[in-house]
Amino acid sequence: MADDLSHIDATGAARMVDVSGKDMTVREAKARGRIAMPAEAARAISIGNVKKGDVLGAARIAGIMAAKKTSELIPLCHPLPLGGVTLDLDLDEAGVTATATVRTTHWTGVEMEAMTAVSVALLTIYDMAKALDRTMVIGEIRLLAKSGGRSGDWTAE
Amino acid sequence: MADDLSHIDATGAARMVDVSGKDMTVREAKARGRIAMPAEAARAISIGNVKKGDVLGAARIAGIMAAKKTSELIPLCHPLPLGGVTLDLDLDEAGVTATATVRTTHWTGVEMEAMTAVSVALLTIYDMAKALDRTMVIGEIRLLAKSGGRSGDWTAE
Amino acid sequence: MADDLSHIDATGAARMVDVSGKDMTVREAKARGRIAMPAEAARAISIGNVKKGDVLGAARIAGIMAAKKTSELIPLCHPLPLGGVTLDLDLDEAGVTATATVRTTHWTGVEMEAMTAVSVALLTIYDMAKALDRTMVIGEIRLLAKSGGRSGDWTAE
Amino acid sequence: MADDLSHIDATGAARMVDVSGKDMTVREAKARGRIAMPAEAARAISIGNVKKGDVLGAARIAGIMAAKKTSELIPLCHPLPLGGVTLDLDLDEAGVTATATVRTTHWTGVEMEAMTAVSVALLTIYDMAKALDRTMVIGEIRLLAKSGGRSGDWTAE
Amino acid sequence: MADDLSHIDATGAARMVDVSGKDMTVREAKARGRIAMPAEAARAISIGNVKKGDVLGAARIAGIMAAKKTSELIPLCHPLPLGGVTLDLDLDEAGVTATATVRTTHWTGVEMEAMTAVSVALLTIYDMAKALDRTMVIGEIRLLAKSGGRSGDWTAE
Amino acid sequence: MADDLSHIDATGAARMVDVSGKDMTVREAKARGRIAMPAEAARAISIGNVKKGDVLGAARIAGIMAAKKTSELIPLCHPLPLGGVTLDLDLDEAGVTATATVRTTHWTGVEMEAMTAVSVALLTIYDMAKALDRTMVIGEIRLLAKSGGRSGDWTAE
Repeated sequence: MADDLSHIDATGAARMVDVSGKDMTVREAKARGRIAMPAEAARAISIGNVKKGDVLGAARIAGIMAAKKTSELIPLCHPLPLGGVTLDLDLDEAGVTATATVRTTHWTGVEMEAMTAVSVALLTIYDMAKALDRTMVIGEIRLLAKSGGRSGDWTAE
Repeated sequence: MADDLSHIDATGAARMVDVSGKDMTVREAKARGRIAMPAEAARAISIGNVKKGDVLGAARIAGIMAAKKTSELIPLCHPLPLGGVTLDLDLDEAGVTATATVRTTHWTGVEMEAMTAVSVALLTIYDMAKALDRTMVIGEIRLLAKSGGRSGDWTAE
Repeated sequence: MADDLSHIDATGAARMVDVSGKDMTVREAKARGRIAMPAEAARAISIGNVKKGDVLGAARIAGIMAAKKTSELIPLCHPLPLGGVTLDLDLDEAGVTATATVRTTHWTGVEMEAMTAVSVALLTIYDMAKALDRTMVIGEIRLLAKSGGRSGDWTAE
Repeated sequence: MADDLSHIDATGAARMVDVSGKDMTVREAKARGRIAMPAEAARAISIGNVKKGDVLGAARIAGIMAAKKTSELIPLCHPLPLGGVTLDLDLDEAGVTATATVRTTHWTGVEMEAMTAVSVALLTIYDMAKALDRTMVIGEIRLLAKSGGRSGDWTAE
Repeated sequence: MADDLSHIDATGAARMVDVSGKDMTVREAKARGRIAMPAEAARAISIGNVKKGDVLGAARIAGIMAAKKTSELIPLCHPLPLGGVTLDLDLDEAGVTATATVRTTHWTGVEMEAMTAVSVALLTIYDMAKALDRTMVIGEIRLLAKSGGRSGDWTAE
Repeated sequence: MADDLSHIDATGAARMVDVSGKDMTVREAKARGRIAMPAEAARAISIGNVKKGDVLGAARIAGIMAAKKTSELIPLCHPLPLGGVTLDLDLDEAGVTATATVRTTHWTGVEMEAMTAVSVALLTIYDMAKALDRTMVIGEIRLLAKSGGRSGDWTAE
């Protein structure tokens, strides 16, 4: 089964798997995560948001920019041109849910780009609200779906 | 209360708060997070780990390097020299717990550096094991403690 | 007079001038620039701005992040910790004026950080509005004032 | 008309527009800008240039490297492989005119790469000559022409 | 013959050569280098390696990540998507030999990516072992072979 | 002796050693390396150099910029403000010798910054001349001297 750790070769050494022989196909990945916070912190973001939208606006920009930096952050991730990134941030009274959708046409998928966009958007919210509350928790970061590529489509149950 | 969103000025616009007049003091922050996975995936990492340690080793390097990139990722975070970073990765039969400790002597704290190190280490584990299992979930990312600075010491309950 | 090109040594080769023996003093720099555009484009940004503020919000974040990247962009510029950055973007009926103020306490000044923040904020506005109009012109980027350091304070007339 | 701000979706949130379904065609963009300076500063660069060419040489390298960093700087700009970049720097007695030409074969254009190359080359000249004169002004940064892509060719009047 | 310095145009100015009209073909490059060290230092790495493999593991990750950064480091090198990277590190009693193999399908070759991966892996070993011995020497960094592209295959004698 | 591998803790895991309690002292490091090439290639660089100096000029800029990126490249290297960098490139009939001197005032030394500046300058020369000759070899990269810090001054014999 260790053979299934695809970034590790037969001798156990890390490698960036060669994908250059694979088909260029349309790839899409969707990921989601959430930051949970006390109602008071959510309310402060909400009021700020009504005025200028800066907390969620900054987090959205940070997440999109982070999607472009994924291969710099994740050691064995392939650098690739991205086709498009959207990042939805839904604020409710107990936190913010972030959902990223990334698309491209390439040899390999964009799951990590979607996961990274979500993670950095949530970290940015933490940073901007931490003076209000340090007990916020980031979690539930997971892949919702992917499509394209030889391994086919996949959707979380 | 919106005044407490310290990165936002009176008109609601984002800014990087001026910290250059603050004291240079020793600062430490500790953060933790976890990736949950099926036993089968944890076992594969464990076996790989016995052989060469590459999944956890790569994740540790990725997390430490990400701590150094924090101010590039989080829009309003101050760039600063880091004193030291440690990142513990504890593998059990249902996942990996990551704990980062970051220290420096500077005008401002290193909470975001610790949170970012944990997040990227966990994303790296996800990347390296995702061929085995795509249902892994990253979560419980939170600050455990901080010390130093005018706002004083703080520990999560 | 060529001796005054301070990044070039006696033989004409580029160098990063040694500032490590200089005093750590509070430094501030303020720079300004403008993007000129047809009224129609300014109005579109204005309407978008009323709704969500995203063009100016994204430009502000981009400019602040660029200030942090200055030493990566400008070959002989010193990397340094930044204390604070503010970036004002004033939209009128013929364009946007960007004014950046950067502060730190260090061996060397932050003029280039302020100039870079302004430039990248204006480029971001160009990017986001270029589907509306490609004739926009970025200009009038100049230093308004600097203070701190051995060469003393300076203000543009 | 706000619908024409192509980086903003129907709800006003920023997004990186999906271009992955577009044709891969040859794209070219040409941009120009200028730094104006007192004759004395231009003469100093000129003399330095006769000797070793370092001010203009460094600015040319900085501009080309910045073209490659465009998608890191401009939040909603697509990362893409670049085919080629040339950057002409023409020194006269009152300043330097920078003209960048960028080419690639991709889904989307390279206007921002050309604009960014010009901007950073001019900022580099400012940095290297600012000890001589702080009143230099960067301006007239604009797109001269673009070709390729669905929106067709365009030339500034 | 100066015409053969392909990054320099007819007037002697640096440029990034336009490759966007070239064929997309499979490209591979292999490079090698070595760090020489006293037996005592090699033994310390070896013992560490038996326990956790961290020196060589960290160097391998650093080299692979550096391959992805090549176009950020080498001014006139084209940014391109990488297909795969492997990096072998062979420890013997007098040092470590690093061999990198890089593959992609693109307009231009990946020689610099392979050379850069080797260089940064060896620098990482130097960094991690320099407390033991500062006399280590990095050398013999050279291209072993390249294939693909119009200039055809090439192998060092 | 494995305890002397200072980046590895008692359990063998990599860490970035905490230096924040150390004294801020003036630090200097000098490193050297060489690229060897056939006389024909050296002559081509020389002729180009007489005209515009671009090969060596570009390599010098690349090396200085790389010094600033050292902590991004070397996993356990501390990010720090640099005071100054000089990079001498001496062309002779059989190659180029690069010598870098880096200075700062900080908790930790700048040996890796000097070694990295040399390595990247030599890689840049290789890149710019490789169309002429692929047999060039980069080598003899070593530390010449360091001063400052608790471990005191050191000079290679």
